[in-house]
Parts: sequence; C-alpha cells; structure tokens
Amino acid sequence: MAPIEAKKIIIDTDPGIDDTMAIFVALRSPEVQVIGLTTIYGNVYTTLATRNALHLLEIAGRTDIPVAEGSHVTITKGTKLRIADFVHGADGLGNQNFPPPKGKPIEQSAAAFLVEQAKLYPGKITIVALGPLTNIALAIQLDPVFASNIGQIVVLGGAFAVNGNVNPAAEANIFGDPDAADIVFTSGADVLAVGINVTHQVILTDADRDVLASSSGKFAQYLCKILEVYFSYHHDAYSTRGVYLHDPTALLAAVNPALVTYTEGVVRVQTSGITRGLTILYNKQKRFEEVTEWWDKPIVKVAVTVDAPAVVKMVMERLMES
Amino acid sequence: MAPIEAKKIIIDTDPGIDDTMAIFVALRSPEVQVIGLTTIYGNVYTTLATRNALHLLEIAGRTDIPVAEGSHVTITKGTKLRIADFVHGADGLGNQNFPPPKGKPIEQSAAAFLVEQAKLYPGKITIVALGPLTNIALAIQLDPVFASNIGQIVVLGGAFAVNGNVNPAAEANIFGDPDAADIVFTSGADVLAVGINVTHQVILTDADRDVLASSSGKFAQYLCKILEVYFSYHHDAYSTRGVYLHDPTALLAAVNPALVTYTEGVVRVQTSGITRGLTILYNKQKRFEEVTEWWDKPIVKVAVTVDAPAVVKMVMERLMES
Repeated sequence: MAPIEAKKIIIDTDPGIDDTMAIFVALRSPEVQVIGLTTIYGNVYTTLATRNALHLLEIAGRTDIPVAEGSHVTITKGTKLRIADFVHGADGLGNQNFPPPKGKPIEQSAAAFLVEQAKLYPGKITIVALGPLTNIALAIQLDPVFASNIGQIVVLGGAFAVNGNVNPAAEANIFGDPDAADIVFTSGADVLAVGINVTHQVILTDADRDVLASSSGKFAQYLCKILEVYFSYHHDAYSTRGVYLHDPTALLAAVNPALVTYTEGVVRVQTSGITRGLTILYNKQKRFEEVTEWWDKPIVKVAVTVDAPAVVKMVMERLMES
Repeated sequence: MAPIEAKKIIIDTDPGIDDTMAIFVALRSPEVQVIGLTTIYGNVYTTLATRNALHLLEIAGRTDIPVAEGSHVTITKGTKLRIADFVHGADGLGNQNFPPPKGKPIEQSAAAFLVEQAKLYPGKITIVALGPLTNIALAIQLDPVFASNIGQIVVLGGAFAVNGNVNPAAEANIFGDPDAADIVFTSGADVLAVGINVTHQVILTDADRDVLASSSGKFAQYLCKILEVYFSYHHDAYSTRGVYLHDPTALLAAVNPALVTYTEGVVRVQTSGITRGLTILYNKQKRFEEVTEWWDKPIVKVAVTVDAPAVVKMVMERLMES
C-alpha cells in the first residue's frame, strides 16, 4: 500500500526504453502512488504503447494499475506521425520480442480517464506526460474545468534556448503534436515543462549500466536487456558513451520537485513551418510595444537546472532494489 | 584620406538614432573607409531613411560618400512594414525636425550599388547591415556571384537563444523581412550575425550620456540632441537607465573583429506563424535521423560574446573627438 501522503500520479507514456525506466522508478517510489497509465504514440504507435504498458505492469507484478489507451492520431487530424523506433527499437523495448501481455486496457479512453480521475481527486493528481501531449489536450477540450481540476502536469518536452533533438528547432514530444502542446501550455493548468535543455544534463553512463547489470534486482536485470539499442543510438547521434535520462528526470521532478529549479513565463509552440514544434518561453523582461501572441496567456513553469547526480543516484538505487 | 589598409565598408542603414551613432563612429574610424550608405525601411520608411542618411553625411561634412536608396518593400511583396518610430521618433532622429538635406541619392538602387561595388573590389568590401536585409537579399538575387564577391556581411540581427525585441520570438531587423534574412543567411556569403543576445550587453548609461553632453565634439553635441527619445523608450520598455548600442556594436565588430567572439553553424529563419522572424542556429552537436532544413546549408558566424566596456569606450572616444 502506498503511504497516505503519497502523491497520486498518472503516467502518460509511449514506452519506450526511458519510459520503462521512469515507470519502474515510479513503482519503486513511496512518495507517489501510480493510479494509472495512459498511452500515446511517439516512441512507438499507440497500439504498441498500450501493449508495452500492460507488459511492463505484468513484469512489475502491478496489474492492479489500469491502462487507458490514448489517441492514435494528432489533435489536428491528418498529420503524419513521427515514430522514434530508431531510438527504442521496432518494438519500443530494445527489439527483445517479449511475449504479448495477458491484460487489456480499460474501456475508457485516456482523455476520459484523465478527466474522470481529475474530477475524483481535484487538485490532487499529477500527470507525468512522457510523450506527445495529445491525450492531455483532448482532456482539456473534453472538460472545461480539467485544467483547474488537475493538480500539476509535468511535461517532458521542449527545447528551451537550445537546439531540438528532432531538428535544430524542435524536441520530439512537442514535435509529435505541436497543436496539442500549445493547448496544454496555454490551458491555465499548473504545468512544469522539463525540456532537453535540462534532461541532456542527466546521463546514465556505460559504467552506470555495468553497475545495473551487476544487480540482482528484477528491474535492473530487465532494463539491461533492453538498453543496448538506446545506448547505441546515443553513441551514433551524440557521440556520447551514455544515454539521456529524459523520462526518469521528468518523473523524479514530480516525485521530488526540489530536484529541479524553474523559471516562470508564457510558453507558446510554433505549429507550422521549418521550426514547427519549437517552444518559445517569454521571460517577461521586456514590455513589447505591440500585442504579442504571448501577452494574455497563463504562466507556466520551465525547468532550468537539475541536480543531475541526485537524479542518476535515485534512478540507480530504485532500479536495483530487489 | 583613409589609410591604404583601411577596410572598405558600406553601411546599409535605416537611421535611426543608434544608426546615427554607428555612422558617426564609422566616419571617425581610421580602420575603415565608408564607401557608401544604402538605405532601408525599419526605424523609419525608406524615403525618410534616405533623407536622414544624406542629412547625417552633411552634418559630418562627408557629402563625398554616395547614398543609394534601397527597397521600399519586403522581398516577398505585400507584407505590411513594421516601422519602429516609437523607438527613434517620427523623424527617426529624436523628433528634432532637422531641415531637409541639400544632397540627393545616386541613381543606382541600393542592390545595384552593392553588386557593382562587390564586383569592383572582390573580397574587399564589408557590408554592415543595420536594418532588415531586403537590399542584401536583392543583391544576392541580382548577381549569382555577389555572395562570393562580397568580403563579409556583418548583420545586426537575430535573437539567438534569447527572447526577441519585437515579440518573444523575433528581433526587429529579422522580423522586418524574414524571407530576405533567410536568403542572406543561406547564401554562402561570409556572414557574421550580431544578435540582441550580444548587443543587449552593450549599454550606454545615463552617466555616459552626461559625459557626451560635456564634450565639445560636434558628433557628441549632435547626438545629445537626438538621444532623449531613445533613452525614454528604453526606460519604458526595459526599465533600464541607459540604451542598447545595437548598431555601433555591429559596426565596431566590422572595424575590429577581436571585439567579439563567435560560434559557427547554420542559421535558418522562420518565415511564418507566431515565431515569424525567429533565428535558429544549428550548432552541429547532434546528427539527426531525418534530413532537416538546416543540413545542406552553408555555415555562418554568430557572435556569442562582446567586449562591452571596450565597445562603449570606443564609441564614446570617437564621438567626442572634435
């Protein structure tokens, strides 16, 4: 049983290798109680994300946690999906061809589940959004009070004042559904964006991986099977001997907000052209002569620093528990 | 006479109060020989820019320098011009209502003049572009070898990894003609962009202005008449007691390249949507899976640091010479 004070979280996820790490870390974090997973395309298509979410909960022995399947398409229909199978493997889990899960998703859609849970526990639920933001935007459209009912939305996404990872302008999750992201950032919800300007500081090294491999913990053992593809991609794309802990960093920012510092401002997303998916934070340091597209929009939080050693240490320790 | 080794420069300008400072500093810089002014809309409409350029050369007693009038419209026709008269005054020169100049611009257009001069002195001319980049883009379109004939183009423009000054995304000169800017940045010419991430570090304070006012130098005296509007705008927009030396910084980066350091990469400009006019520098630190709009474009230089005290000192000293 989770302790009484545990923060209720829903993980919106497209597993995904670092999603897997984040989900496992969440299940080993007494500070939070995972009350559901919702699925989305991104690292894989939504159908496979749902399959993987169910599979991971079975691995963890936590089939009590419901999985609600999310949108198969972007919020503005007709956009070709970008699927990052070259980062995570064709199956999203390092090309291990795990057997299909026994469980099934619940009947509710991800958006309906999010709306219902936010209503049940107003102000109490944190969504940790690890993929494109379609489900969250749909929930906002479905229920006018969702944005105020939800406690916080921790968004893994954006590239603030740095180059993106899909192209020089855009980070993958925002690029996956820029229109949805703009809806979420301007919804008035309490949003904390954790962008790659932060997560690129949090690296699991080859040496860390060796330590994981030496652990008898079941999560550590499972991860070491699937990590190869992820390490190999990082080596090719970034010339690093290590991998970025995107999703675990966002998860831990929800578990322990003191791990990051943030600034506040209005974030808008460019939805067309060569910088489609770009996030621009207005820092409020200038009063513009003209009315801008930022001026009347609600403030969000944007992470600027992270205690990277503490995040890596927490990820390692929690994954190695037996 | 300019010394034999003086670098030939053409100033493309929309005077403008800081344009005036840059032009006066250039005329007092033995390191460079100003071989022409070309005019453009921006701080004022092009017609007024031409009038002001002629006026300033008459004030300086340098009517030997030709003025070529530039484009009255953006390179993609039909775009409404953004004129920053709220920064520089309705006349561009601090609302002083100076008498009209006696001189006239030459018959050649700015673009034709730029092409001709670049052909006359291949590799030897530096353009210091202090306004929207329409004239330079037209020169590139007019002559296929202009980009290689021109020595260097120092662009005052862009907001690299910081908020813009027109809105959170865009800096004024790039916003003035984003299509032209994208043509210039991807032309293959030797381009050095000096953005507001750099020029916002170079501030002429109220105290500096008092020192200028105490000088008997004719340029210092003239400037103290027109500076009030510019100081007042900065106080309102930025809550600063001082003004940004945008144009003089770009000019001095041409006079003495050692005053700035720069990084290299591909710069593209967003030409539509809410971030229209945004500049994105690709720093080449990642190999992207997909082909991007940056991948096959030429490298440019983007200033990252400036010796601000040295720039302010040079500006003050040269303006106070009698």
